[in-house]
Formats: sequence, structure tokens, C-alpha cells
Amino acid sequence: MLSNRKHHSKKAGLPPGTLVYTGDKTHDIEISTIEFDAEKIAERKIADIAECAGLRDSESIAWIDFNGVHDTKTLTQVGEMFGLHPLVLEDIANIGQRPKADIFTDYVFIVAKMFRANGEDGEIIHEQVSFILGKNYLLSFQEMSGDVFEPVRQRLRQGLGRVRTNGADYLLYALLDAIVDGYFVVLERFGEKIETLEERLLEDPNEQIRAELHAAKREMIFIRKAIWPMREVLASLARERTGLVAESSEIYIRDLYDHIIQVMDTVETHRDMVSGLLDTYLSSLSNKMNEVMKVLTIFASIFIPLTFIAGVYGMNFEFMPELAWKWAYFGVWGVMAGVAVALLIFFRRKKWL
Amino acid sequence: MLSNRKHHSKKAGLPPGTLVYTGDKTHDIEISTIEFDAEKIAERKIADIAECAGLRDSESIAWIDFNGVHDTKTLTQVGEMFGLHPLVLEDIANIGQRPKADIFTDYVFIVAKMFRANGEDGEIIHEQVSFILGKNYLLSFQEMSGDVFEPVRQRLRQGLGRVRTNGADYLLYALLDAIVDGYFVVLERFGEKIETLEERLLEDPNEQIRAELHAAKREMIFIRKAIWPMREVLASLARERTGLVAESSEIYIRDLYDHIIQVMDTVETHRDMVSGLLDTYLSSLSNKMNEVMKVLTIFASIFIPLTFIAGVYGMNFEFMPELAWKWAYFGVWGVMAGVAVALLIFFRRKKWL
Amino acid sequence: MLSNRKHHSKKAGLPPGTLVYTGDKTHDIEISTIEFDAEKIAERKIADIAECAGLRDSESIAWIDFNGVHDTKTLTQVGEMFGLHPLVLEDIANIGQRPKADIFTDYVFIVAKMFRANGEDGEIIHEQVSFILGKNYLLSFQEMSGDVFEPVRQRLRQGLGRVRTNGADYLLYALLDAIVDGYFVVLERFGEKIETLEERLLEDPNEQIRAELHAAKREMIFIRKAIWPMREVLASLARERTGLVAESSEIYIRDLYDHIIQVMDTVETHRDMVSGLLDTYLSSLSNKMNEVMKVLTIFASIFIPLTFIAGVYGMNFEFMPELAWKWAYFGVWGVMAGVAVALLIFFRRKKWL
Amino acid sequence: MLSNRKHHSKKAGLPPGTLVYTGDKTHDIEISTIEFDAEKIAERKIADIAECAGLRDSESIAWIDFNGVHDTKTLTQVGEMFGLHPLVLEDIANIGQRPKADIFTDYVFIVAKMFRANGEDGEIIHEQVSFILGKNYLLSFQEMSGDVFEPVRQRLRQGLGRVRTNGADYLLYALLDAIVDGYFVVLERFGEKIETLEERLLEDPNEQIRAELHAAKREMIFIRKAIWPMREVLASLARERTGLVAESSEIYIRDLYDHIIQVMDTVETHRDMVSGLLDTYLSSLSNKMNEVMKVLTIFASIFIPLTFIAGVYGMNFEFMPELAWKWAYFGVWGVMAGVAVALLIFFRRKKWL
Amino acid sequence: MLSNRKHHSKKAGLPPGTLVYTGDKTHDIEISTIEFDAEKIAERKIADIAECAGLRDSESIAWIDFNGVHDTKTLTQVGEMFGLHPLVLEDIANIGQRPKADIFTDYVFIVAKMFRANGEDGEIIHEQVSFILGKNYLLSFQEMSGDVFEPVRQRLRQGLGRVRTNGADYLLYALLDAIVDGYFVVLERFGEKIETLEERLLEDPNEQIRAELHAAKREMIFIRKAIWPMREVLASLARERTGLVAESSEIYIRDLYDHIIQVMDTVETHRDMVSGLLDTYLSSLSNKMNEVMKVLTIFASIFIPLTFIAGVYGMNFEFMPELAWKWAYFGVWGVMAGVAVALLIFFRRKKWL
Repeated sequence: MLSNRKHHSKKAGLPPGTLVYTGDKTHDIEISTIEFDAEKIAERKIADIAECAGLRDSESIAWIDFNGVHDTKTLTQVGEMFGLHPLVLEDIANIGQRPKADIFTDYVFIVAKMFRANGEDGEIIHEQVSFILGKNYLLSFQEMSGDVFEPVRQRLRQGLGRVRTNGADYLLYALLDAIVDGYFVVLERFGEKIETLEERLLEDPNEQIRAELHAAKREMIFIRKAIWPMREVLASLARERTGLVAESSEIYIRDLYDHIIQVMDTVETHRDMVSGLLDTYLSSLSNKMNEVMKVLTIFASIFIPLTFIAGVYGMNFEFMPELAWKWAYFGVWGVMAGVAVALLIFFRRKKWL
Repeated sequence: MLSNRKHHSKKAGLPPGTLVYTGDKTHDIEISTIEFDAEKIAERKIADIAECAGLRDSESIAWIDFNGVHDTKTLTQVGEMFGLHPLVLEDIANIGQRPKADIFTDYVFIVAKMFRANGEDGEIIHEQVSFILGKNYLLSFQEMSGDVFEPVRQRLRQGLGRVRTNGADYLLYALLDAIVDGYFVVLERFGEKIETLEERLLEDPNEQIRAELHAAKREMIFIRKAIWPMREVLASLARERTGLVAESSEIYIRDLYDHIIQVMDTVETHRDMVSGLLDTYLSSLSNKMNEVMKVLTIFASIFIPLTFIAGVYGMNFEFMPELAWKWAYFGVWGVMAGVAVALLIFFRRKKWL
Repeated sequence: MLSNRKHHSKKAGLPPGTLVYTGDKTHDIEISTIEFDAEKIAERKIADIAECAGLRDSESIAWIDFNGVHDTKTLTQVGEMFGLHPLVLEDIANIGQRPKADIFTDYVFIVAKMFRANGEDGEIIHEQVSFILGKNYLLSFQEMSGDVFEPVRQRLRQGLGRVRTNGADYLLYALLDAIVDGYFVVLERFGEKIETLEERLLEDPNEQIRAELHAAKREMIFIRKAIWPMREVLASLARERTGLVAESSEIYIRDLYDHIIQVMDTVETHRDMVSGLLDTYLSSLSNKMNEVMKVLTIFASIFIPLTFIAGVYGMNFEFMPELAWKWAYFGVWGVMAGVAVALLIFFRRKKWL
Repeated sequence: MLSNRKHHSKKAGLPPGTLVYTGDKTHDIEISTIEFDAEKIAERKIADIAECAGLRDSESIAWIDFNGVHDTKTLTQVGEMFGLHPLVLEDIANIGQRPKADIFTDYVFIVAKMFRANGEDGEIIHEQVSFILGKNYLLSFQEMSGDVFEPVRQRLRQGLGRVRTNGADYLLYALLDAIVDGYFVVLERFGEKIETLEERLLEDPNEQIRAELHAAKREMIFIRKAIWPMREVLASLARERTGLVAESSEIYIRDLYDHIIQVMDTVETHRDMVSGLLDTYLSSLSNKMNEVMKVLTIFASIFIPLTFIAGVYGMNFEFMPELAWKWAYFGVWGVMAGVAVALLIFFRRKKWL
Repeated sequence: MLSNRKHHSKKAGLPPGTLVYTGDKTHDIEISTIEFDAEKIAERKIADIAECAGLRDSESIAWIDFNGVHDTKTLTQVGEMFGLHPLVLEDIANIGQRPKADIFTDYVFIVAKMFRANGEDGEIIHEQVSFILGKNYLLSFQEMSGDVFEPVRQRLRQGLGRVRTNGADYLLYALLDAIVDGYFVVLERFGEKIETLEERLLEDPNEQIRAELHAAKREMIFIRKAIWPMREVLASLARERTGLVAESSEIYIRDLYDHIIQVMDTVETHRDMVSGLLDTYLSSLSNKMNEVMKVLTIFASIFIPLTFIAGVYGMNFEFMPELAWKWAYFGVWGVMAGVAVALLIFFRRKKWL
């Protein structure tokens, strides 16, 4: 989100269609291809994009996966090889895109956001993934290596499910499905985090928890913004008929659409929970203040009159008859005890004790 | 809701259409069938789904009710027997679905949420119910045994109303009607609970009630999310004409639609009430604080000047003419009483007493 | 509203179309008929619905008014006599309906909410009124006797306006117009109540007024929910052409529509006012707290240093040179007066005095 | 607004189309006519509406302006003369109308709200203005004399601009344009008022300013409600083609539409500013409370320990060795000074000083 | 924004289409032209608009840029030369326009808002820019000199990108693209400012920061209002086909549209952040109050009982046996220490220490 805001201005003043990578370079670009049909499958790691030349028009289906979109030279080559519009290439390199689907005559361009938990420390990583769906090929562009597509690759290798026997559009669906499943995993982590925060809040509400709740709220807003446009993406895919997406795939896309709605429902639920916890925090602040005030009031209200009485008999007037009475001192103690007890009863009646 | 969030990730990475039960296994699957036409009715409990084979094409109408959706083998058999799409079976087994209606060429698939109060302790139980409406048959899939359909079964047995003489679509309507009536029952309980909370709040506002109000608010949000999509379900049923839903049933569906709107109105009313009570709680906190402060202020403001006066005549100066006056002590008492009375009048004018 | 929530569950488990009165029985059903055409008019109170048999196909226009909808036997008879759908009868008897218009081939069914101020104590009464508009007849069903239709009856009797010369649809319009005029009367009362609350709030804000404001807010929400769907009712009437509503009536319906919009505007204005008053209440709480705190602070801050000074010279040290000074006592008074004056100036500078 | 709410009920129970003036009678009705074409112009004040008889079908264009709509007899005559529907006359006389445009076959009926600042004391006056646009004539009905149309009259007299050479629809546009310009003038005044309030708020936040802010907010809501429906009015005018509004006028209406949107933007901006100031007020209340509390805390916390020390050495025990020490008294002063200084440092560290 | 509100009323009462500059005159009008085709390019600064006469129908493409719109005479000449509608000229001169696109038969009129950071002090300047797109020419009208178009001029001069080889519509696109890139630059500055405010807020929350946050919120609202209508502008451009905007440009306009959505997303994110910080401020106020109260309570609650004990033994009764006890004084010290320790433990248990 911040990266989005921060990096776009790198491009201000450049002609549209200029390829500028708006992220931070983290590693070399890696290209891997999987060519398959119902019978066979071939995986390759390639160093030069030129090796992909034949894939565009091959009979079998090709999935070319790019890890890293900072190498504008490679992107330009890909653009020429597959006949992509310059603005499409610009959008691939600009990692601050909003999810969208653009339908061209001979390919479909899709931008999505992928969320996954980092294996080591469980930190949640998000990156932009772009897809180009052509007749027999699917290109995918990721910001960095590491993704949620491994199960799909396994199914391809083992020929499980429909993924080997269907076209490139089904592969696209399978990858989008993996991305959406990833949303559920991430939201679950959030759910657990919120529950932990709730427990800590009920134990000891403090400013630290409030800050974490605010951060969680902000993260929910960020996730919502990344996921919400996916609905339109899927709706566009289902609606526009270019021949690239088979009609029989409609049910799968509708299914994904339902999942996105479920994700959004969960996001909304989380937001409601976080808002509820923030309300709880504020009202617990008021409650603590009330408790502090009550203690002060009880102490002050009981001892102030007693101190006054003691003060009275500390006066130095010459004519103070009580001072000479034999039991006066003990009588005063009695009066003071009576006042204290009366006040304690009064406070108990008010339910302050 | 939490189960929804929690269990979906069980599926991450599996090929779409894979049958995975996302709930917790609670009991064995139970299958019961009711075959009926205008003249006769036959009820059976069956152990093996294979016994249902003939029902799909029988002349009479068949209602097959499955209690438990965790047995993926049975589901697969049902899928083959009735020609269901794999994604439909996946949705039946995945109990975190959003209510929806999918219209296929020879059957209609409906997901709904059923709410009912547990007989023993009145706890509210919710579960997912899926329906498959075919030409002459209706399949229903529940998460567990126990449902709100008993009155419909009674009417079937006794031949009351239109349910025996109309088709499977009317039976579906009757079951959905029973589910929607169940919503009213549950909302009534909620209404009573909210009224109880209101009474307790007016008596003694405390943190415990606030927590319960927050919980009630959260539950209302959950119910709203479960019920709201039912509108679309019914609208789809009324709109799409596959021949499975007779045109004469439209008025019944419209009626159900009206009931759903009424349910939503009631849910909104409840939410408004709960929000109002939360506001009441917060303002009663402020009022209590005000009251505490007033008591403190009155005690402190009255006794502090008096104590000061007593302190003055407790000083040990050698030349303090008042000390030797005969009536000085009683005069000081008079002055102190005057000060106290003046302050009491002042506070009464301010309406603090 | 509460009745709505409370009574619907009486019906849970019954076959749809079952006539169940969901209100409380308050009196016997009363039936009155008015038959009229441009030349003549005949009013009757009838005991048995069978007397209405001829009215359905008579040349003149008939208005049959039912006071009480709890007599399911009568309703069934009416249903048979005028060929009404069982669900329509169910909706008439179920007083928790939402306003709506259902267009059938030979009649139109309308549900509306009537608000009127009780003559005696000015309490606002609301009840459900259903209408069946046929070719030459209009049926109206009220929950209880007493309504806002008297002026229309007068106009019918005296042949004033267009009501005698136009069809049953114009009569329906005239009655709906009377209902909508009733909304204005009720809202005016509310407006006056809110103004009274405002005056009381400015004089002395207390918890009682807050509770009344909350109640007013809740009532506005209830009224809004009862009136809002009337827009759709009128839109349906204007849109659907069954021949029952003449095209020349469209301008009247549009006029009613405008009035409903005005009513809603007024309701919104009232809600805004009530919300504003609640805000005023809360901020006046804060102000009162501030004032209390200021009084406490001023008293405490002035007398605490003075008491300290007095305390110092109340010490019993043997060597305290000031004690023996001749003017020390009066000097201490001077110091204390100086401290008090300095503090008063300080507080006045802070605008606390 | 209040008048709206208050007066509508005058009409309850009357037949629709009954002419009832819902305002307060303030003066006699005044009728003035302007007849013009490109060459000549004639202005008249007329006493009897009958004098207008010829104007409906004259070749030149006639603008008849009525000041006062309380004279139902005159309105009825106008209605007959120009063939107006009774409901139109009713709406003209009922000054609580919402702005709207009704298209009839041979005339267009428009209701608008006119705002203007009273010349003398700058008070903002609003009144309802209705227009009837016919083939060659324009009728305008104002509640009282005084309007924002004087510049248009000047342009007519002097033949400036297009107003003399275009039809009655252009005159209508010119008058509506004058009304919309009036909105800008009124909003400017509001803007200045809000800025004044802001300055006063920053100087000294008090309850009075809060009340004025609330009043301003309420007025903004009122203005919004009066202006908002003008959008639809203009949209209707642009859309419906009756031949009364020339196609060439569309650009003018679109321009007015843009201005209304601008007005609404300004209204929203004002509302945001007022809301922001109310927030500022509330947070300044909290700040003041904090300041009061700090002063109290500092005074109390410093002198309470000192008074305690003084109290200790005011005790009358026989064996208190310190009392006899030579420098004890001055030592105690030193201790007390040390305690006070330590506390002052503590408070400064906490940034309370 | 304020200028908008303030200046529009200058126009009240004038005939529509009257040219009135609603801003403040800051400098002389400057006109510069760029004529270009794929082969050549010619730049001129011209003094008299008459020199542009031939540009309208020249073969090459002409971009005429006006700096300053206060010279109504020049505008009138331009209007005649290019056949512009008077209302268009009025809108160009009225700098309080809302962004919009009006499609005429032989030209398109566009109003946009340009934001840029002033070079010297980084202050953000906004001005209105209007465009007239004709067959072979593009007119641009800016309020003052200084703009974000320099990179486009550079590309024109150097023949970079597509801008020289495409038509005037592509030039318009390039300029709008530069304006939208400017939005990103401005939003980035805002992002940085908000982050700075956040840091300062966490260090020391004070009224000053709250005021700055409110100002930032108001500015975000202003920017939102200026940018939001750009969506419609671009949608109109894409939709309406007048031949002036080539079909091949649609993808560029769609791309701009996506950028505007991204800008709006960022604006929303900023608003959420500012709102979050305001919440943080308010809750930190409460926290500070709590802390102040705790210190007061602890001091007062500990010393008030001790002072009372000291007061008791300061009484002057003749019969107070303790006074004569040898170790009484030290015993009292012990009691007082015990009370203080007990209270400290009590407060630590309450987590106030």
C-alpha cells in the first residue's frame, strides 16, 4: 500500500507505455516453463526469454512463469513475442496496480494480488501477480520467488484432477483458485490474531493493545482494497466471450466468485470484531477512570470530615469546655467512627463499594 | 462463522471439486426417504445410498434427506446417481457456504442456513442445509440430525395442505418456509434477550452487560450475514425458468421473499436497539462519573474551608487575641456552620443536591 | 413492531396459506358497506358476510369495510366470495406485514400502515390496513374500529369532489390519501414533542430526557420502516396496468408519491433533530462535569495552601521565632489573604471564574 | 421546514385537489405582467386576473408573476384560464412542496425553492416559487413580494442578452439561473458565518458556540433538502420532450445542472467544516478538563504531603525529641522545600508544567 | 474551494454566457503555440490571439496554451475564432468549475484540476485547466503560468513516444496523464506529512497536532472533490464517439481511468489513516487524564489518612492517655508507615503503580 503510493511518482513525466519497475529490485528474474497436454509434461528453467519463442503457437499448453518484473528488457521481449500492448507491459512492471481484467482480441490480461504467509516467521507477504491468457499459453508474472502455486504444479506433474486435460483457461482458473485459497489462510491468521488481542484486552487493556488493534484495522482495510476488485475481475471473465475462456468454465468462475464474496464477508466480520474491540477498549478506559475516581472519592470523603473534627479540637481557644471533659477524647473517637461508618453505608448504598 | 473461517483452509491446495468435509464429524450419516403422491406415502430409513437408485425416475415424488455431509464416499455416490456437478458436491460438503441458488439444466442447487433453538437448553444452533431440486425428487443435506422440518413431515403424512398434491418444487417451498419460520422463532428469542438486557442495564449498568450487548450485536451481524443472501436465492428461483419451478409457485416464492424482508427488518430493529443500549450504557457511565464527582466536590468543598478555619485557631502564636475571647469558640462554630450552610445553598442552586 | 416480532412465531410449522390471526383479539368483527354511484348512495352495517354476495358484480361501486381481521371464518368466506388467493388472506390476518402491493389478474392487493392519534389521550395508534381493489368493489380490512377515513365517508355521503363520479380505484386513492394525511398529523405531534424535549433539555439536561430522546429515535425508526415501503407500493400501482387502475389516476398516484417523499423528508429531519439533541445532551454532560471539576479545583487549590500555612504555625517546636512576634498572627492572615487573591486572579485569567 | 411540517395537516381530510393555502397570509396578492417580443416590451400591474385572458394565446411572450398564493379564488381563475389540473393548483398553494417538475401535455409545472438575503438585516428568507411554462407564456407564483428576479427584469427591459429573442423556455431558464445564483450568495454568507464561528471557537470554546454550530448544521441540512431535488427537476426538463422546451436550450439546462452540483458540493463542504468544528469543540472540552485536573493535581499533590508534615509536628505527645532540637523548625522547612521541589521536577518531567 | 464559494456570487444577476473571471488577476495572459506533425515542430510565444487564426484548419496539429483566463476580451476572440459556445467560455473563465466533459458536435470541452508542488517552498498549488479538443487542434487554458506539462513538451520537441505521430486526442491524453501523475506526486507528499504527524503524535499528543490532522482531513476532502469527477470525465470521453477521439485511444483512456481509481484508493487510505490518528489522539487524551487522576488519587489517598492521624494527636483534650506514653510518638510513626505501605500495596494490586 505504502509502496504503491511511494513508487508511482517514479513515473511522473514519462511517456505512457514506458516500462518502469516501481518496486525494489530484490533478485534476478527467474523464468520457468511447463509445457503439457493430457499425455506428457515438460518442465524447464530457462535463462533467456528467447527460448520461449516456439511456445506461443505450440499444440500443447504452455505456462511460463516469471519471478521478478524489474527486468524491463525481458518484459519488452515478451511483449514483442506475444504481441502485448505497451500499456499492458507498463501495468505488469508497475506493482501498484489495482486488480483488473482487460479483454483484448487475442489475449486476456489479469492483475491479481497474492497473499501468503512467509514460511519462516509467519509474516504475511503480498505481491502482485499478472496473468496473460492466450490461446494455448498462460504467462504469469510475480514480483518475487515463492508463491501459492505449488499444489497446482503438483497436480500438473501427477495428472491429478482436470488440469492436464483442460485448456489454458482452466489452468488460469486453478491458479486464481490457489490465490483465493491463500486469502482464506491469511484471514484465518488474522482471526487468530484478533482473538489473541481480545483475550489480552480483557485481561489488561492498555495503549499497546489499542495500537495493535488500529494496525489490524488498517491491515483489514488494505486487504479489503486488494481483494474487493477481484469480484469485478471474475465478473468480466465470466461476461466477455472472446473464445479464450470456454463456456464450460463459467461454473468454475462463478464458484471462485462465491469464494471471493465469502472472503469479503470474513473481512467485514473481522473489521466488525476489531471495531468492537476498540469500543471495548474505550469503554474500559472510562471504567478504569470511574474506578480511580471512586477510590479517591471514598478516601477523601471519609477522612476529610474526620480531619475536620480533629482540627476543631486542636484549636487553642481558652474557653473550650469539651477539652476538660473526662471522656471527651473517647467520645470524639466514637463520633468519628460513627461518621465513617455512616459514610461507608452511604457508599455501599450507591454501589460504589 | 468462526467455523467457516477456520475450516476453509483445510482445502487450500486441493484441486477444485475435491470433496472435503470442512466441519467436525459428529455422528454417522443418516438417510431417510419419503416417497409420496396424492394417494400414498412411504417413509424409509436406509443404510446404503444404493437403495435410492430407483427414486430418480419414479413417478411419485421422492424426498431424500441426508443427516451429515462428512461422508464423502456417500456424497460421491449421490453425485453419480443424480448427475451432479463436482463443484456442487464440494459446496455441499463445505459447510461455510454463503446461501445461494445455482440453476443447472436438470436440477437446481440451493444452499440455505437453518437456525433452531436446541430443545434442552434453548441454545441456538445453526447449520447449513443444501437442496437439490430435480424433476420428481428433492434431496436435502443437513449437517446433523434435528431440524425444523417436522411439521412438514406431519403434513405429508396426514395429507394436510397442498404439499401432497403439488410437485417437488412445492415441497422445496414448504421446507424453505419452515426454515424462514425458524428465523422468526430465533429472532423472538433475541428480542426477549435484548429486553432482559435493557431491564438489567437500567437497574445497574456494568461491564458485564456491555460485554453481553457486544456479543448480541456480533450475533445479529452473524445472523444478518446468514439470512441476507436468501433474498437473492429466492429472487433467482422466481426469475429463472427451467421448468423445475412451476409458474404457479411464483406467488409462494414472492411470499417467502416478503418474509425474508420482514426478517431483515426485525434484524435491523434489533441492531438499532442494541446500539441504542450501548449508547445508553456509555452515557450512564458518564452519569455515574458525574455523580461520583459531585459527591467528592460537595464533601471536599464544604470541609476544606472549615478545616482551614480550625487550622487557623490551632496556630500557636503568642498574640492571638481571639483565643482569649470568652465566646470565641462558639463563635467559630457559628461561622463554620454559616459557611457550610452557604455552600449547601450554593450547591442546591447548581442542582447538584 | 414488537407485536410483529412476537406474533409471527404463532405460525411456525403451519402450512402456508393457513389463516392465523397474529394480533390480539380486541372486539367482534364489524362489517359496513357503502354502495354508491354518481346518483345514489346506500350505507349498511351487516352482520353476516353472506349479505355482500351480490356486491361483487353489481353495477354501482361497493366499498366493504371490515373492522377486525381475527375472525378467520369470515375471512375464508370473503376469500371464496371474491376469489382471493389463500396467501392473500393469510397476509390480511397476519398484522405484521410490510406495506406492499401485489397485482393479480382480477384484483390488486395492498397492505398499508395507518397511524392516528387516539382521540382521548392523544396516544398514537398504528394498525395494518389491507385493501382489495376489484373491478367495481373495494374491500378494506382494519385491525380495529376507528380510522382516518371519516372525511372520505363524508365526501361520499355529500357527493363532494370526484369520489362519487370516479371508479373504485379513485376511492382507493382517496383512502390512501387520507392515510398519508394521517402521517403528517402524527409527524406534527412528534415535531412538537421533540421541540418540548429540546426546551427541557436546554433547561436541565438529565437522564430522563435522554431516555425519552432514545425512545423518540426508536419511534422514528419504527415509523420510517412502516412508511418507507409505501413508495414502492405506489410505484407498483402506477406501473402495472391491469385495467383496474385507470390511466387518468396516474397523476393522483404520482401526487401521493410526492407526499410520501415529503413524509420521509420530515422523518429524516426529525431523526436529525433527535440525534442533534442527543449530541447536545452528551456535550452538556461533559460541560457539567467540567463545571463540577472547576468548583472543586478552585476550592481545593485556594484552601489547601492556606491550611498548610496554618498547619505550619500549629507545630509545637520549642524554637519557632515567629510565634513570639507581636504582629505575626496578623501578618500570617495577610499572607494567606495574598495567596488567596493571587490564586483568584490566576483562575480568572484562565476564565474559570 | 417547520412551516412545512406544521401546515400540511391543515389539509388532512379534505378532498384531493382542494385549494388550501398552507402558509400564513402576509399581504394581498399582487399580479404583474410583462409582455415582450424582440421589438417591444410592456409591463403592467393588474388588479384582476381576468385582464390576463388574452395573454395565453397572444403572439408575443407573456410572463405573469403572482406575489402571494393564499388567494384561492384567484388561483382557481388562473387554473380555468390556463387549463391547469386541480392537483397543480393544490401544489402551488401548498408551500411545503418538494422541488419537482411535472410534464403535462401542454404545459410544464415546476416547483423550486428561492433563497435570498433580506435587504435590511441580512436574514435569509426562503420561499417556494412555482412556474407554469406554456407555449408562449410563463406563470410564476411566489409566496411574498421580493425576489431575485430583478436582474432578469432589467435584461428584459434593456433587451440585453438572449432573453428577449428566445422563447418562454429561455425566460424560465433565466429565472431558474437567477434562483441558483441566489443559492451561491446564501452559501457564501454561510461560509463567512462558519469562519467567524471557527475563529470564536479557537479563542474561547463555549456552549453558546456549540449551539450555533448545531443550528448551522441543521440549516445546512435544510438547505440541502431544498436544493437537492433541483437536480431531478433539471434532469426531467432536459429529458422530456414536449416541444415546450426547445432542444437548443438543453445546453443551458445542463449548465444549470452543473451549477446545482457545485452548490451541493459547497453544501457538503460546509457540513464537513461544521462537523469538524463540532469535533474540535468536543476535544477542546476534553483538553480544558485535562488542564483543570492538572492544576488540581499539582496543588493537591504538593501541599498534601507538606500539610502532613506540619500536622506531625503539631501533635501533642510528651516525648517528641525533635521538638526540642534547636534547628528542627528550620530543618522541617528545609524538608518541606525539598519535597515541593522534588514534586515540581516530577511534574515537569511528566510535561504537566 | 473557498475561492469557488467566494467568487461565484460575482456573477449573480448577470445574463448566462456573460464572461466574468471569478479568480484574482495575477499576471498578464500568455499565449504559446506548438505546431507539429511527425516531421517538424514549431514553438511560438504570441502576443495577439489573432496570430492563431490559421491554426484551426492547418494540416499539422496545433496546441495553443493560454496562461491566464482573466482576459475576457481574448477569450471572446478565441470563442469566435474556434466557434465555441458562450457557456463554454463562461466555464473557462469561472475557475470554480467541477471537472467535466461536454461533447459538442465539432469539439470536446474538458475541465480538470491540476495539482503541483510549488518549486520553492513545496506548497501545493491547485488550478483549473480547461481543454478544447478539436479536429487538429487542442486549446488549453490555465489560471497561471507554471504547470506539469513540461515533460510532454520535451517529448514533443524530441519526438519521443507516440505523441508526435498521433492526433490531437493523443496529445490531450498525454496532458491528462501528466495531470494525473501530478496527483500521485501530491498524494505522496501528503503521505509523508501524515507519517510525520503520526510520529509527532506518538511522541507528544497535543492540540496543535490535532488541528493539523483536522486540516489534513479537510484537504483530503478537498482533493477528493477535485479528483473524483475526473472518473466521469474519462468515462464520457471513452463512451461518446464524435470522431474527435479515435477508437484506438480507448485503451489509453481506460488506463487513465484505472489510475484515477488508484488515486481515489490512495485518498481513501489517507483519510482512513488521518481518522485513525484522530482516534488515537482522543484516546491518548483519555489516557493522559487517567494518568493525572491516578497520581492525584495516590497522593491524596495516602496522605489524607496520615494527616488525619496527625490531626488526632494534635487535639488538646486534657485526658488523652496516649500522649503521655513514652513510645507513643514512635508508635504513631509506625502506624502511619504501615498505613502508607498497605495503600501502596493496594494500588500496586490495582496496577496503578
